[in-house]
Amino acid sequence: KLLFSGGSKSGRVNHLQDLKSPKVVQIVKKDDHKEEKTVYCRCWKSSKFPLCDGTHVKHNEQTGDNVGPLIITRA
Amino acid sequence: KLLFSGGSKSGRVNHLQDLKSPKVVQIVKKDDHKEEKTVYCRCWKSSKFPLCDGTHVKHNEQTGDNVGPLIITRA
Ligand code: FES
Ligand code: FES
Repeated sequence: KLLFSGGSKSGRVNHLQDLKSPKVVQIVKKDDHKEEKTVYCRCWKSSKFPLCDGTHVKHNEQTGDNVGPLIITRA
Repeated sequence: KLLFSGGSKSGRVNHLQDLKSPKVVQIVKKDDHKEEKTVYCRCWKSSKFPLCDGTHVKHNEQTGDNVGPLIITRA
């Protein structure tokens, strides 16, 4: 089987988020983390990006990857 | 030219960090962000992972990607 599929080429990571931006950066204030946990996507496939919506599970299953989110906790 | 190169296959994102882990997740307390800015890697290529070391610039150049870090600011 071929080693690439659908939207994947050349080792790029992002195929979905803000593709017209030269570089996708988010800046968040520490004190804006009001929730018990704020979960940030690092697979670039979340429909709630920059937040994680759990899509990394499907991504890992489909690609053999092992990525997961960064979690900021309130306490 | 072929659509995959070197370490890239099947659309996986992570080729470097904690490859034996089933899922790479970091959990950080909000109040552990003591610096003016804490910069978190989302390209998975930083030598300071989970922190960003600027390698996303090279990654973007080499792959045509447009990824960048998540930045938590103190104020
Ligand atoms: S959806 Fe991307 S890390 Fe969870
Ligand atoms: S080194 Fe990975 S986002 Fe900066």
